[in-house]
Amino acid sequence: MELDFDKMGGLIPAIIQDAATGKVLMLAYMNPFAWEKTLETGKAWFYSRSRDKQWMKGEESGNVQVVKEVFIDCDQDTVLLKVEQVGNAACHKGYVSCFFRKLNGEVTIVEEKVFDPEKVYKKK
Amino acid sequence: MELDFDKMGGLIPAIIQDAATGKVLMLAYMNPFAWEKTLETGKAWFYSRSRDKQWMKGEESGNVQVVKEVFIDCDQDTVLLKVEQVGNAACHKGYVSCFFRKLNGEVTIVEEKVFDPEKVYKKK
Repeated sequence: MELDFDKMGGLIPAIIQDAATGKVLMLAYMNPFAWEKTLETGKAWFYSRSRDKQWMKGEESGNVQVVKEVFIDCDQDTVLLKVEQVGNAACHKGYVSCFFRKLNGEVTIVEEKVFDPEKVYKKK
Repeated sequence: MELDFDKMGGLIPAIIQDAATGKVLMLAYMNPFAWEKTLETGKAWFYSRSRDKQWMKGEESGNVQVVKEVFIDCDQDTVLLKVEQVGNAACHKGYVSCFFRKLNGEVTIVEEKVFDPEKVYKKK
């Protein structure tokens, strides 16, 4: 089955969900290389638009995502990966999930930080 | 809090998750109009790239999504909506979730159809 990378200029969004808890951890983009690497290695690879390069999630932080299940949507332009989140945190800001802010009239942080990004990511 | 619609030419992806079951139902895109309508009405609105128009999910099928919780990601360029899925099915192909196909070497349909799209969507 071929994914439709053309709709968004060579990228597809990938939703990452914790296989154990069902929590949605993050959304990132894959180019064909990252998609193939994900299937080949069983670890989540993405394409960073801001850095213009592909990367393995966790390559710096150690918080790798081990792929447990892969789902493809009806239009073949989005994928859902259920993963084992190594280190129990996906967000580069130190939270379990990138969706740590809830909007309910005002914005509230609804998660505890589980790591200190200053210590985990080397200053460059 | 302002969302970053610029990264993707005026759109942000919205992940839709069933508030009761935790199942990821679909991903669709919002333009600023759809985002504002979603907050204002408490029902999910999207922007269709193929039809070039905003629409309320369920306006034709009746399978409206009642928004229970809204989360914003760390980069403010993706949102997560936990919803009550009216009619218990989100996919226009008749499945609960758009992610009804699992990839595991080969592609397998892993959900039962819950409605017949031919009957629900009028022929145009």
